[in-house]
Amino acid sequence: MTTKMNRQSIIDAMAGLVGPENVLTDAHDMAPHLIDWRKRHTGVAACVVFPRSVEHVSNALAYCNDNGIKVFPQGGNTSVCGGSVPDASGNSILLNLARMNRIIEVNADNNSMTVEAGCILTDVQNAALAADRMFPLTLGAEGSCQIGGNLATNAGGTNVVRFGNTRDLVLGIEVVLADGRVWHGLRTLRKNNSGYDLKNLFVGAEGTLGVITRASLKLFPKPRAMATAVLGFESVQAAVDEGLKLQAAFPGELVGLELISQSEFEISLRHGVNMRNPFDATPKWMVLVELAGATGTSEALTDRLTEALQDSFDGGAVQDAVVASSGQQRADLWHIRHNVTEANGHEGMGLTHDIAVPTYRIPDFVEQAEAALAKHYPQAVQVIVGHMGDGNLHYIAMFTHAYWATVEDKRGVQLKLSHLLYDIAAGMGGTFSAEHGIGALHVPEMSIYKNASEVALMRQIKQLLDPRDTMNPGRVLPAA
Amino acid sequence: MTTKMNRQSIIDAMAGLVGPENVLTDAHDMAPHLIDWRKRHTGVAACVVFPRSVEHVSNALAYCNDNGIKVFPQGGNTSVCGGSVPDASGNSILLNLARMNRIIEVNADNNSMTVEAGCILTDVQNAALAADRMFPLTLGAEGSCQIGGNLATNAGGTNVVRFGNTRDLVLGIEVVLADGRVWHGLRTLRKNNSGYDLKNLFVGAEGTLGVITRASLKLFPKPRAMATAVLGFESVQAAVDEGLKLQAAFPGELVGLELISQSEFEISLRHGVNMRNPFDATPKWMVLVELAGATGTSEALTDRLTEALQDSFDGGAVQDAVVASSGQQRADLWHIRHNVTEANGHEGMGLTHDIAVPTYRIPDFVEQAEAALAKHYPQAVQVIVGHMGDGNLHYIAMFTHAYWATVEDKRGVQLKLSHLLYDIAAGMGGTFSAEHGIGALHVPEMSIYKNASEVALMRQIKQLLDPRDTMNPGRVLPAA
Repeated sequence: MTTKMNRQSIIDAMAGLVGPENVLTDAHDMAPHLIDWRKRHTGVAACVVFPRSVEHVSNALAYCNDNGIKVFPQGGNTSVCGGSVPDASGNSILLNLARMNRIIEVNADNNSMTVEAGCILTDVQNAALAADRMFPLTLGAEGSCQIGGNLATNAGGTNVVRFGNTRDLVLGIEVVLADGRVWHGLRTLRKNNSGYDLKNLFVGAEGTLGVITRASLKLFPKPRAMATAVLGFESVQAAVDEGLKLQAAFPGELVGLELISQSEFEISLRHGVNMRNPFDATPKWMVLVELAGATGTSEALTDRLTEALQDSFDGGAVQDAVVASSGQQRADLWHIRHNVTEANGHEGMGLTHDIAVPTYRIPDFVEQAEAALAKHYPQAVQVIVGHMGDGNLHYIAMFTHAYWATVEDKRGVQLKLSHLLYDIAAGMGGTFSAEHGIGALHVPEMSIYKNASEVALMRQIKQLLDPRDTMNPGRVLPAA
Repeated sequence: MTTKMNRQSIIDAMAGLVGPENVLTDAHDMAPHLIDWRKRHTGVAACVVFPRSVEHVSNALAYCNDNGIKVFPQGGNTSVCGGSVPDASGNSILLNLARMNRIIEVNADNNSMTVEAGCILTDVQNAALAADRMFPLTLGAEGSCQIGGNLATNAGGTNVVRFGNTRDLVLGIEVVLADGRVWHGLRTLRKNNSGYDLKNLFVGAEGTLGVITRASLKLFPKPRAMATAVLGFESVQAAVDEGLKLQAAFPGELVGLELISQSEFEISLRHGVNMRNPFDATPKWMVLVELAGATGTSEALTDRLTEALQDSFDGGAVQDAVVASSGQQRADLWHIRHNVTEANGHEGMGLTHDIAVPTYRIPDFVEQAEAALAKHYPQAVQVIVGHMGDGNLHYIAMFTHAYWATVEDKRGVQLKLSHLLYDIAAGMGGTFSAEHGIGALHVPEMSIYKNASEVALMRQIKQLLDPRDTMNPGRVLPAA
């Protein structure tokens, strides 16, 4: 390893390796890459490098690894935990995969497709649809996030209840290791018991073990029929009970099961454009449920859904229900759900927590969390939206901007509140990061909530695959 | 590390750590553990150790690792590739998990269960059924294989087309590492993005990186309705075309899609008890298809299946079809399928190959394999049974015992034939081991068919987690 290089020599080296046209150096051009979209995390880099091939990535990484230059990989820069911007150290490179954005193959016969890491998620979805297939990963940031980032963070979203996390949708990957070695793990097989599962080590490692450059993904039949409804409940317990019933009744067809609190629903309506409340009075809790059928009509599937709900409706467990009777109505219901993140930003200062517990423990979690919030932060409103079928709640303590401006120790409040909530989740066998990952933000929690032997094992693996700590340093793992 | 210990001191040490009542030393008692069930692989061990707790496993492994004693883990000893018996070196221990066989918890609310590694698979299935749930892993050896072995080998079976391999059915595991450290990875969450995925490193590592001692498993709703049929086809292409159609039509309900050749079907009938051919004339190719529904009746589901088949039947693509109209008929059809392994043993000397290719390439594979067999081994009959939905064929070259007795270089024939077939699979992006794993038998193929950088990466991981090569030495990875 040579001594630390200065900025210009890093820029020159990168320009030599990937071509000057693929290196951003101007401060103004680089700026959007050095701050996250919520404007909570910033960093510095010598330059932004846009590789166009796996060879570019390999050469850049080998060079950086040899010369003590840190590498921060970036996809669509949609992380919510500071995982997609560099640190403040400066003489690092930001490696953005945006220019490796080719759909390499869509194989309808094999229900698979192969893509470069920089493909935007919606482009991946659309390429599948064009071949009469579906790639089921769907999440709020899909219009700008890159599939490589989805893979690196094992992204979740609203379809996990049926299709699993990103990890479950991958058949094979190609990875450039920290030293520039390429692992050729692109495959499209459903079964392959020939040695260790290396793929899952890189999926979800958030770029700390290498850079995923290409992936083979699973495709599914494009649904022919959809049924969508929003159900209203008096209590979160009633909502969860009904959700578990629907999961049991439609295991192959239930593709969405979202829990929304009254507060969140009204925030979304308040700050959206062309929003209409489908309820006369917003229920205390709502569940957005969606079924997808491979055959038949949406009308028939909707009939089956309403039939399955009839008993609960008659018995009063379901208080109110709005069933979509057209594609437009379906889109309107989802629009309320998808608008929450933006609406929350307009509403106030929302401190978001991405916890998971076993689904049936959600009512306990909410009860305990609500009590803790009322006791310690009575100024905050409890706002909840979550993927109920996965036990995953986005639990938001919403402060008004006016109040938040008066808080002196903002970081202290964030930490205290989050640890109150994480303690409750941990007590139920839960996690402090269900789908958002660790990034830079949650590194401290790794020391607190993961057992030490587990972190030690992760550190051994990091040391093995990236002994010089070249890849995304300071992310995921706490310093030894 | 001390110098190599003699047998008695190993026995004494183990008796001290787990109790003498949990150590087998008598040659007669040990014998069934030292030979595989097909009687093709044998080994030697100082003793057979039956731990009763994770502490037993931890203490035994720490001791062995410190003292240079090799450890061969064993479950139900149902491996078909020599993965479950020790090598010939002698002063090793065989660690059998049979006495860690408690069902720790079945949580119907959470659709999860937690079990010890030594539980027999059918006991796991039955415990789930008793709670009105289903654990979907099902395979021929389920009455004797242990769930720990299923996890270690990432077992497949006939339900993979809908529920995935064992890997996909695991929520968390507890593992004892080679040095006796325990990784407490038991969890029942659906989502948990907090650090590297360690679980998948141990699942499928065949006991070479540590011993899985407990696992949390996913449960599913118990099916209320079943529909089962055997379809007859003139060609393997027609069979695959129809299989892909059914997969697209019933993505949430298709739980079985087995391909059976005429030769295999007739062998199973010939050597079974109370067997009846459901066809007047056995078709050249058959597909056993099964649907499972969470609601409704078997009659209604069967109607939907026959309706979906009608066009293909009318058009002649499906030549013949037998639809089960009762649970007994359903069991009879599956009995023909499940009897194949035993029947093949009676029929002759079957050289089995566990390949996978993309499903739609199966007809190409069969055509090329058939030509290779006819050219090089005209004495053999082509026998095929496979999990079509996974692209996984068990391709058997069946020789008569009389002919096989005349073959001088039996190992040479096996190697030449298998490499002919593996080359064909590899040419289609396929694998030489789809679900059976590597064990001892397929270690040579790891050097031939995996790329060197991949094997090198696996070896790095082995070296990291088991630097003294204590765990299951000589299995999975070729010597450096």
